[in-house]
Amino acid sequence: MSAVLQPRVAADRRPNDPYASRTLTEATLVPRVDPVVHRPADRAGPLTSDQVSHFDENGYLVLENLFNAAEIDVLQAELTRLEQSQARLDPETLILEPDDRELRSVFRVHAQSGVMKRLASDSRLLDVARFLLADDVYVHQSRMNYKPGFFGKEFYWHSDFETWHVEDGMPRMRALSMSIALTENTEHNGPLMLIPGSHQTYVTCVGETPADHYKQSLRRQEYGVPDPASLTTLVDRGGIVAPKGPAGTVIVFECNMMHGSNSNITPHPRSNAFIVYNAISNALLEPFGGQRPRPEFIATRAHIEPLIEHRGRFA
Amino acid sequence: MSAVLQPRVAADRRPNDPYASRTLTEATLVPRVDPVVHRPADRAGPLTSDQVSHFDENGYLVLENLFNAAEIDVLQAELTRLEQSQARLDPETLILEPDDRELRSVFRVHAQSGVMKRLASDSRLLDVARFLLADDVYVHQSRMNYKPGFFGKEFYWHSDFETWHVEDGMPRMRALSMSIALTENTEHNGPLMLIPGSHQTYVTCVGETPADHYKQSLRRQEYGVPDPASLTTLVDRGGIVAPKGPAGTVIVFECNMMHGSNSNITPHPRSNAFIVYNAISNALLEPFGGQRPRPEFIATRAHIEPLIEHRGRFA
Repeated sequence: MSAVLQPRVAADRRPNDPYASRTLTEATLVPRVDPVVHRPADRAGPLTSDQVSHFDENGYLVLENLFNAAEIDVLQAELTRLEQSQARLDPETLILEPDDRELRSVFRVHAQSGVMKRLASDSRLLDVARFLLADDVYVHQSRMNYKPGFFGKEFYWHSDFETWHVEDGMPRMRALSMSIALTENTEHNGPLMLIPGSHQTYVTCVGETPADHYKQSLRRQEYGVPDPASLTTLVDRGGIVAPKGPAGTVIVFECNMMHGSNSNITPHPRSNAFIVYNAISNALLEPFGGQRPRPEFIATRAHIEPLIEHRGRFA
Repeated sequence: MSAVLQPRVAADRRPNDPYASRTLTEATLVPRVDPVVHRPADRAGPLTSDQVSHFDENGYLVLENLFNAAEIDVLQAELTRLEQSQARLDPETLILEPDDRELRSVFRVHAQSGVMKRLASDSRLLDVARFLLADDVYVHQSRMNYKPGFFGKEFYWHSDFETWHVEDGMPRMRALSMSIALTENTEHNGPLMLIPGSHQTYVTCVGETPADHYKQSLRRQEYGVPDPASLTTLVDRGGIVAPKGPAGTVIVFECNMMHGSNSNITPHPRSNAFIVYNAISNALLEPFGGQRPRPEFIATRAHIEPLIEHRGRFA
């Protein structure tokens, strides 16, 4: 592996950018410079101190039993409804599997679905995001992921933040994702795999980003991909976890967490609702990679509004 | 799913073939007509009666601690040696991953490697095969599977027997496979998945077989593929198991077992030595699909010799 700990910025696009990437011919492992848990230590919040420590050290947290059966029914019905009403959705937001056989994801669902808008502002999720990020938050990205049975393809290892920084202009690590399972996650159906502790290290990627890269990368990632040696180092340090659980299970993970998933040949889809919360103070600048920004449906830039919480159950 | 239980043979290539396949436009589920355990009930053998019952009902068996650490070292060294000496192997027997990046398998290893020849005739494996098949046996197929880390691709669900019958001319279900793990099988590195009980049902596949189909099918299967409805039925009945265990773990499974594996994006390869034992009385006829037989390196036809056991440890 590469032992270089400080990036030698070949194309110094932004001086003092601690997270420059895709500027070198060799991958580097750079220590994170931002806090993981941004809250003041003495502020009371929706998580136990064990949960906060777990998130701080490992970069993820599993929340169970947040939603009741009726709420899960509503979310599952919305998953189906969106799939069946593709003709009425913004066509740009519909992403197919690499072989074009099936729907992989619908993006920007918080703006296209009342149910998803309500979910994104639900206090059970929002309070956690605001607490860990110590700020008001907005939805940077949202989607329904279908990961169909039989032909669901793998999603290679990546740090979301690397892409969001280089291609979208997210300045710092002050965002997190929540995956709300809408089908059971088993060991067999290509569950989300996380490398605990990997959020502490920023893996810079090699190679330039092609123009309009997002059109391919949402289906199959080829740039912004970490190298095998760096991945081996991270796995040697932290291992791999793949949280299992019934529909309704929420996995919260930090924006620099290295994650991915294997394919799914089982008959059981691995579907989830996916919401990325970003701190208002961390709203997007120009992309750090120097390219044209990606469209709004992938990375909210125009519609930055703090979410207002909805308390209580929605079903 | 299709509820047709008896195949309506459109192209009646072999009258009375209980396992006709790829002859209909619709998939069918046909009950197996052959025994699973072929031994006379009163004959003593190398397995406990619980193990025999487990194999009979579920179609597979996991054998642990057959080999000592020195023997596993020898097998692992041979895995590496074969990969590094590809230039000295029969080029036809080297199969790459679908994207050509890495070695997927070396076939006919029992004829190209003294270590693998010794392993195939080891009494700890051979006695089990001869007992369950109640006959002398020979090696129908052997290989080293590399399933590399990072880029190991999935292997879609299939019954080996369907292919061996249609493309190779194996007359009846009287064969079994043994996968000897040469790396740890974890839940994350694309382990072999089996559908317990699926060996009792023969899933006929739709579509004709293209000529020289094997050149593609060893890398990515497209014909002889069971349909989603039949797979769903089998999984609803039997579920899915993916045996885990350290290097040296042996998975024995019946020739009509429905099995497959997901991709492997972890840094950990999922390598194994793979040996198919067929009963001498079940040696190949002309392919039941009417095509030209596949080459010897995939399906032994010319070299039918009963294996003579080697007792004791080989390291």
